[in-house]
Amino acid sequence: MSKNLTSRAEDYSKWYNELVVKANLAENSAVRGCMVIKPYGYAIWEKMQAELDRMFKETGHENAYFPLFVPKSLFEAEEKNAEGFAKECAVVTHYRLQNDPDNPGKLRVDPEAKLEEELVVRPTSEAIIWNTYKGWIQSYRDLPILINQWANVVRWEMRTRLFLRTAEFLWQEGHTAHATKAEALVEAEQMNDVYAKFAENFMAMPVIKGVKTESERFAGALDTYCIEALMQDGKALQAGTSHFLGQNFAKAFDVKFTNNEGKLDYVWATSWGVSTRLMGALIMTHSDDKGLVLPPNLAPFQVVIVPIYKNDEQFEAITEKAESIIKELKALNISCKFDKRTTHRPGAKFAQHELQGVPLRIAIGPKDLENNTIELARRDTLTKEIVQIDELTSTIKDLLKVIQDELFNKALIYRDDHITEVNDFETFKKVLETKTGFISAHWDGTAETEQKIKELTKATIRCIPMNNKQEDGVCVYSGKPSLQRVLFAKAY
Amino acid sequence: MSKNLTSRAEDYSKWYNELVVKANLAENSAVRGCMVIKPYGYAIWEKMQAELDRMFKETGHENAYFPLFVPKSLFEAEEKNAEGFAKECAVVTHYRLQNDPDNPGKLRVDPEAKLEEELVVRPTSEAIIWNTYKGWIQSYRDLPILINQWANVVRWEMRTRLFLRTAEFLWQEGHTAHATKAEALVEAEQMNDVYAKFAENFMAMPVIKGVKTESERFAGALDTYCIEALMQDGKALQAGTSHFLGQNFAKAFDVKFTNNEGKLDYVWATSWGVSTRLMGALIMTHSDDKGLVLPPNLAPFQVVIVPIYKNDEQFEAITEKAESIIKELKALNISCKFDKRTTHRPGAKFAQHELQGVPLRIAIGPKDLENNTIELARRDTLTKEIVQIDELTSTIKDLLKVIQDELFNKALIYRDDHITEVNDFETFKKVLETKTGFISAHWDGTAETEQKIKELTKATIRCIPMNNKQEDGVCVYSGKPSLQRVLFAKAY
Repeated sequence: MSKNLTSRAEDYSKWYNELVVKANLAENSAVRGCMVIKPYGYAIWEKMQAELDRMFKETGHENAYFPLFVPKSLFEAEEKNAEGFAKECAVVTHYRLQNDPDNPGKLRVDPEAKLEEELVVRPTSEAIIWNTYKGWIQSYRDLPILINQWANVVRWEMRTRLFLRTAEFLWQEGHTAHATKAEALVEAEQMNDVYAKFAENFMAMPVIKGVKTESERFAGALDTYCIEALMQDGKALQAGTSHFLGQNFAKAFDVKFTNNEGKLDYVWATSWGVSTRLMGALIMTHSDDKGLVLPPNLAPFQVVIVPIYKNDEQFEAITEKAESIIKELKALNISCKFDKRTTHRPGAKFAQHELQGVPLRIAIGPKDLENNTIELARRDTLTKEIVQIDELTSTIKDLLKVIQDELFNKALIYRDDHITEVNDFETFKKVLETKTGFISAHWDGTAETEQKIKELTKATIRCIPMNNKQEDGVCVYSGKPSLQRVLFAKAY
Repeated sequence: MSKNLTSRAEDYSKWYNELVVKANLAENSAVRGCMVIKPYGYAIWEKMQAELDRMFKETGHENAYFPLFVPKSLFEAEEKNAEGFAKECAVVTHYRLQNDPDNPGKLRVDPEAKLEEELVVRPTSEAIIWNTYKGWIQSYRDLPILINQWANVVRWEMRTRLFLRTAEFLWQEGHTAHATKAEALVEAEQMNDVYAKFAENFMAMPVIKGVKTESERFAGALDTYCIEALMQDGKALQAGTSHFLGQNFAKAFDVKFTNNEGKLDYVWATSWGVSTRLMGALIMTHSDDKGLVLPPNLAPFQVVIVPIYKNDEQFEAITEKAESIIKELKALNISCKFDKRTTHRPGAKFAQHELQGVPLRIAIGPKDLENNTIELARRDTLTKEIVQIDELTSTIKDLLKVIQDELFNKALIYRDDHITEVNDFETFKKVLETKTGFISAHWDGTAETEQKIKELTKATIRCIPMNNKQEDGVCVYSGKPSLQRVLFAKAY
């Protein structure tokens, strides 16, 4: 299988598209821009979900579920306070199909089943949720509300790519309501920290925490915190955002509360989300020309055992050994799959597990049973070693931790090696064309300069890093004074 | 709070509607027929999901995700083989809103953004999934495919009720593909058994396993297995279905495979699902005039501790004790919440936890600390006892099991007491009007008689029980010969 994978050097974009399909992660569907997430890809997403969900609950959040549809009028209310909100949405106008009287065997929309008010398939849920919160909040005693939702959303994207940009995608969206500005700010920053911790500890993907410039903020947000990662091709990817929404949504939906001094005030809000886009980020952080490389903390199974045998007797002996290994690993919370398919040869199995990024592969043959050894292969380094069977489980336990750490460190070194401090615009353009990655440069703080740089180079300001060093400098484009460097990059 | 709940005897339907809202399970939304599932209700659904998901994986299934939208043409393909498929669906016809030039501040559908082919919001996913499977299946080596999806679906229902019948609802849908008829039949029956096991062991809800008559089957199914439960008002509720689809969908979407004899054949299919409707079934199986009664196996928290104190010192001492109890319970995998809110008095907390069905409530006051005792209250029986603190955790552990079992047994006795064997149509009608419940009666096997009985009594055949006793008899309506009794009831 893997022999057909385009190399990254040849065509990174093609490599990505092929890998997603060949590794059985996802594929395009019959619906324009919508993907099918296949079981192996979905199992990785489930691991991500489980971990994020645990972290959200640990920080006091509960899950709930709000409607898929948003009445058009709620968008109108939102539009007043958050102008520029995306309008590329799927719109439901009718509620019935009928047999087409003019075309036997065909269906058509029943013209009499037209909705009085169109329903928009949620592109995000602020409008429907804040319209609901209005009924839940009267007093400071009803606050904070700390709710998260796991859901599908739809944005009518013109150019789509599996995981990275799809019309329908899966995500989580947190929507919180607070009595004070300070509390909402703490919440927004806290959730960005949660995302960073998840990205680094589970995805083994180093991220830079920062805030967006005004032009890159979510419509309606006063501040957008974000985590930015660097992909292998030198392009940045926004992996998660957390918005401080001020009182904008409370004003749009008239959500007031009596504070502890008995005065009426608008509620303070945050929202924060990550999506199946993280799958794309995971792939483009670690994978190689042989296929997917998965960090052990997110692998659907961390170890695979491939039996090598010539007859039933050998197969039975190997099976017995494999089952005892699986049991020992399970006791250590390590997931292991025994690939006993009779429809595939060992070589084909090796290739498939390599392509699918299983962190560790065990091969057991009759010789191994005799010698009390097994062959253990690492996916990330493509190295093999012979291990004594009585040392196997402890070796695996240690190795999984080593792999997780090394993947992170490798990505971190690459990332840090691709942050270039630049002080003039010629170098700026040259770095973007050659080395790529992040450019750390002074910026005069105006949307005008930001826009100009974007037009000239396609690079955008990815973020103003948190706790950014303050230093005197001049804008790389305008030459005007600046007090800090910001991070530019071309981005997904 | 609970003092306002309508009693079941007074108006069962009103009691249900009030309970769902007051116990913070769900509420109606701004979108007709769509509900908001509130955190407490969603936490119960999450417990259901976790357990079902575990059972699906144990029986070899994997999760995946398919698009929300189904192109109209796929419905046309399906319609040919599964006529009568529901057409009351939400239909997306446009992909953009724009500012309405004639009404400042208003939005309208952009007439130029009309889809070439309408997209239906999935009412169920057979069409999009079998259209996808076509690309996955060439040979028997690709089979079986054992996939489940957790998703939202939309059916344009005219009369909706929270959880029981909503336009959008959450569910899981299993879609499997097999090489042989026998294997597909085993799968369909197996999944119905899984549902029955879940209903009985987790929901504490006794169910009757059976098959549907032809008129009650899912469109396109050759056999529909089901689990039927009896609600407290004597009406039946279909809690889960599992369909043997034969080769109908394979034919509709042209999914053929080479079998192990090298011959081309159509693939055999099943589908099976349960939904948030189970929440309604759970409520109407156990709850009482005081509010929700939850089986411990599905309660968001199984125990709640309410502190009773007059000063900070007492509060601190109680907190210390509560935390040590929580820690001990956690070690036994028992979830416990310490309700230390200062905004509510103990009485209000008691009322709320009663209304929300927390299985066990602990009250600790200063006297209890002195005496090394606590007061333990059971929600299901509304009884209290004083327990020595050193016996508390073992008492709780045992009691939770007892409650789970007793809830099931109580529901079983009620259910069995409401299955009436009836041999003539006058008695049939009388039982339906007075005792309600299931009626076990002979039926001549014709759709005509079934329809006639439905028209005259509103009772439908809920199922032909599995392993049904064969006996000579005559149809309760037509007097024609019959070999077995079937179960009739009015149903949700």
